[in-house]
Amino acid sequence: MRFDILTLFTGMFSGPFDESIIKRAKDKQLIDITLHNIRDYATDRHQTADDAPYGGGAGMVMKAEPLAACITAVKELRPDSTVVLTSPQGRPLTHRVASELAKKAGLIIVCGRYEGIDERIRTLYAEDDISLGDFVLSGGEIAAMAIVDATTRLIPGVLGSCESAGADSFGDGLLEYPQYTRPPLFMGIEVPPALLSGNHELIRKWRRKESLRKTRLLRPDLLPEITLTKEDLKMLHEIAREDDRGM
Amino acid sequence: MRFDILTLFTGMFSGPFDESIIKRAKDKQLIDITLHNIRDYATDRHQTADDAPYGGGAGMVMKAEPLAACITAVKELRPDSTVVLTSPQGRPLTHRVASELAKKAGLIIVCGRYEGIDERIRTLYAEDDISLGDFVLSGGEIAAMAIVDATTRLIPGVLGSCESAGADSFGDGLLEYPQYTRPPLFMGIEVPPALLSGNHELIRKWRRKESLRKTRLLRPDLLPEITLTKEDLKMLHEIAREDDRGM
Repeated sequence: MRFDILTLFTGMFSGPFDESIIKRAKDKQLIDITLHNIRDYATDRHQTADDAPYGGGAGMVMKAEPLAACITAVKELRPDSTVVLTSPQGRPLTHRVASELAKKAGLIIVCGRYEGIDERIRTLYAEDDISLGDFVLSGGEIAAMAIVDATTRLIPGVLGSCESAGADSFGDGLLEYPQYTRPPLFMGIEVPPALLSGNHELIRKWRRKESLRKTRLLRPDLLPEITLTKEDLKMLHEIAREDDRGM
Repeated sequence: MRFDILTLFTGMFSGPFDESIIKRAKDKQLIDITLHNIRDYATDRHQTADDAPYGGGAGMVMKAEPLAACITAVKELRPDSTVVLTSPQGRPLTHRVASELAKKAGLIIVCGRYEGIDERIRTLYAEDDISLGDFVLSGGEIAAMAIVDATTRLIPGVLGSCESAGADSFGDGLLEYPQYTRPPLFMGIEVPPALLSGNHELIRKWRRKESLRKTRLLRPDLLPEITLTKEDLKMLHEIAREDDRGM
């Protein structure tokens, strides 16, 4: 999968893509990330990429021409890629959105400054618009990193056979169960006995129940979204009895 | 404000904090960012920071001891800072959460791998837990970048007098109005005449109405959260008439 990132701050990406899973995916040629400096497409002597907003007010607005020239040039190289804006008004990035993006040939991610890009770029070129959430960042660069990371993990072959996206939070619609590793006793807290039992069925049940418990406690809004088995419902009843006792 | 970031991948942060607003805030000494490599606190010969999960299964889990040692050492330096985990089960980062964090003396941000940190770290040390959204990242590093960026913008003195967080999306609970800059005509699309009128009241009204229009179209869930003026309600009526015509 191809990622083309259009930004005024190519330097921001020097570290984030050179570690861990993204680096491995690049090395295995499962993904390819190309940075494009929007400023290179500005045609005036000062390579101006932003200008004061019409109507006045704070901040600068990214100019339409250099952005349009940059998008057009990249789109010509990658006709099958989708042009994605990153802005607070986009649809929120979720596991489902990332899965959908992971099936595309490529993404051309436009990093706006959140003071705004000229609206005509949205009108003329945007095929998708993704938001990280209801907060404001100085620019779309960190959002682009999140989109690349969340999407890359879901491309077949990226995670090794000893890893898996399935057990992650949201993989099955629930929060992940608590994880423990050695030592069995740490600062007075023991690892739950089920995990030390060696009994696979006991471990599976403990994990499912604790996933349900975390989700019920922290994100009850997720429960209606998933298909609960008869076992899940029984566990949720037990959890209600255990956790709500004395409330 | 102090940010201490605890990570296994310090290299990921080499670019993201060296540009734009974050860089300026550092230069003005309004914020201070220190990276701590969790691996430096592992005491065995191989500096092991992760281990297989109890109960089996995919991935590795970050061990409790190095993490605990790292958190304890940093907390000793910064007794007033708050220990924040980054994980999908945390509370979602929002403009309101960022405003709340911006008032703190400091944040000690723990970047877990999302395969999991030993649950006992959460039990013993976590004072807060922040999620970027309902998706999975390879680690908490990109979430930490987003927290630092979104929070830093809201620290008094960080944005210059010619910038402002007030007009940004969510600053007033609405999505931002469309922005335009020169030229007045681009690829057949004109800048809305109100913005070229020089009439401040006309511009203010146009922007307010377009903010309401975007929010109504893309994020109607935000409208009940804000206090609408009589003027807002009148505009929303007009928008309904204009946009829903023929539906």
